[in-house]
Amino acid sequence: MTVYNFCAGPAMLPADVMTKARNEFLNFQDLGVSVMEISHRSSPYIALAEEAEQNLRDLMGIPDDYAVLFMHGGARGQFSAVPLNLLGEGKALYLNSGQWSDAAGVEAAKYGTVETRDLRRSAGDLDLGDLGDTRGYRYVHYCPNETVNGTALFDLPQVDSPLVADMSSCILGREVEVSKFGLIYAGAQKNAGPAGLALVIVRRDLLGQADPKTPAILDYALADKTDSMYNTPPTYPWYLAGEVFKWVKTQGGVAAVAENNRAKADRLYQFIDDSPFYRNEVAAHCRSEMNVTFQLQDTALDARFLREAEAAGLMALEGHRMVGGMRASLYNAMPMAGVEALIAFMSRFEQEHV
Amino acid sequence: MTVYNFCAGPAMLPADVMTKARNEFLNFQDLGVSVMEISHRSSPYIALAEEAEQNLRDLMGIPDDYAVLFMHGGARGQFSAVPLNLLGEGKALYLNSGQWSDAAGVEAAKYGTVETRDLRRSAGDLDLGDLGDTRGYRYVHYCPNETVNGTALFDLPQVDSPLVADMSSCILGREVEVSKFGLIYAGAQKNAGPAGLALVIVRRDLLGQADPKTPAILDYALADKTDSMYNTPPTYPWYLAGEVFKWVKTQGGVAAVAENNRAKADRLYQFIDDSPFYRNEVAAHCRSEMNVTFQLQDTALDARFLREAEAAGLMALEGHRMVGGMRASLYNAMPMAGVEALIAFMSRFEQEHV
Repeated sequence: MTVYNFCAGPAMLPADVMTKARNEFLNFQDLGVSVMEISHRSSPYIALAEEAEQNLRDLMGIPDDYAVLFMHGGARGQFSAVPLNLLGEGKALYLNSGQWSDAAGVEAAKYGTVETRDLRRSAGDLDLGDLGDTRGYRYVHYCPNETVNGTALFDLPQVDSPLVADMSSCILGREVEVSKFGLIYAGAQKNAGPAGLALVIVRRDLLGQADPKTPAILDYALADKTDSMYNTPPTYPWYLAGEVFKWVKTQGGVAAVAENNRAKADRLYQFIDDSPFYRNEVAAHCRSEMNVTFQLQDTALDARFLREAEAAGLMALEGHRMVGGMRASLYNAMPMAGVEALIAFMSRFEQEHV
Repeated sequence: MTVYNFCAGPAMLPADVMTKARNEFLNFQDLGVSVMEISHRSSPYIALAEEAEQNLRDLMGIPDDYAVLFMHGGARGQFSAVPLNLLGEGKALYLNSGQWSDAAGVEAAKYGTVETRDLRRSAGDLDLGDLGDTRGYRYVHYCPNETVNGTALFDLPQVDSPLVADMSSCILGREVEVSKFGLIYAGAQKNAGPAGLALVIVRRDLLGQADPKTPAILDYALADKTDSMYNTPPTYPWYLAGEVFKWVKTQGGVAAVAENNRAKADRLYQFIDDSPFYRNEVAAHCRSEMNVTFQLQDTALDARFLREAEAAGLMALEGHRMVGGMRASLYNAMPMAGVEALIAFMSRFEQEHV
């Protein structure tokens, strides 16, 4: 049975990447050992690391004045690293669009002055509004895709200070113009690799003013200076992220992947909207293309829906524990066939239970 | 050709562990997906995580009043986490026995008052001496195995305040009485798993006084309260560490592995001492059983030695870039056959070049 894994993260990785990784698991580049058993300072590893960075630069069109860092600690580590490196004695503005951007602001407030702006007209309806004069901030932070409610901001916040984005759940999933940002970060475990790695793309002129108490592993300038090898990096996650980058290239790059993502999500939203049995309560203009949340009209059927979906090879459809319901995460690695299998199951389940 | 990998870290993992991991790489517990593609909050992953913790508790005899944490960031992350969590407004004593303990003290000094005591009579001769009255310190930090020079401290420092040990390069490699320590930490990538994971064993009464600016991912009390799942942990490294723990059990536990480690190291030191062609300059009482450093009398032959060793399947014997020479790391996963192959090669090389 083909299994389709809709987990919000750690999420499925591209089947081709996983097969290649399995095939060379014990013998990387004919060295007779695994890639996770070689030094990060050995020439084969350094070549791999540089290639991964270059491919990410190519895919996202990252300008030369931006550093690309491969760091420990996931996105939560960046919740601390961003203020530690950028906030100084100034203040920052956090745009709140859901659980993740809220949590980022709470962590940042440990380090200095944080103001917040709530973008939610409701949990499922976001409005960037007019942010007014934002020149006084060291940076403005936002999260373009919130996985819990399945909401997204597709427009860029118009700000007069460096824009910082948590792209954990949408990096490489849609096109972005990096030069519009001061800093982009992402935990790898949704669209870019396995858990334990964070990607950071940061304009170099923002570096060098870190709080003296910044832990070395979260110091951007140090990571930049040492090619992300001040300490032993998470070498296997970095390797797998590099394989994912190569795979995105073979798919035609971010534009092609993004088009496919939009098509997958549209297909599922359309099915949900057409059905009286299921519903999605997110406003059309901010429906995430990565995480499609939906509810059964009769929530008494939730457990049964999940059990039967699992039995049909449709895995991890349970909504986030904070909101319940269902959630289908459709990251880059999810093929259209997975969406079709899900819709076929949902349709069958509906017919059996109306 | 059998390859023996003497890398100091990321180091080789047990062959049985790697084979099992490869075999279930694409299909963990018949779920149809990889263990790295499932949620850390799913029941199969939680069972795996709990089993790993229990096995580590069993192997090291960790008392119940100690928390066992699986954290991001490697040992360098702990260089910051230890003072952030334990130092407060007090002072700490760092015992300096080499590059790693030195670096830990330098990082700690960012957070408060750090005193240091140099234990080196020379790079290869350590002396704990009489540490005197150490009641005034929040903790005393040391590193029982230094990988760069291949030195070790086998006796415990006698101190009157909580003892903190960086066991990155010897955890599970020799027996320790955990109750003698306030805190033990280790980057996983030598004896316990792949890079990207840190193990922390900490007496719970030391927790709860962290600096308010401690990054959430480095907060011990938070990690303890959330079973190391405040954020997505490095799930694949944790899984592999769990497999390593099971493997150590099958070897007869830490005592049996330690005996084997001592036998491997003694064999190699004996060969070096008996040869006029090679030398090791570490004092006998502090020779590491994990990292055997050695030099060729004629350093002009170094490059050739390394090249021919590599060709003979003996990998990563180059000494640390700070000291040069050679280094054979003989962590738990290195079988005696690897040591024998190395000695056979060294003997052959000697005969060809005397």
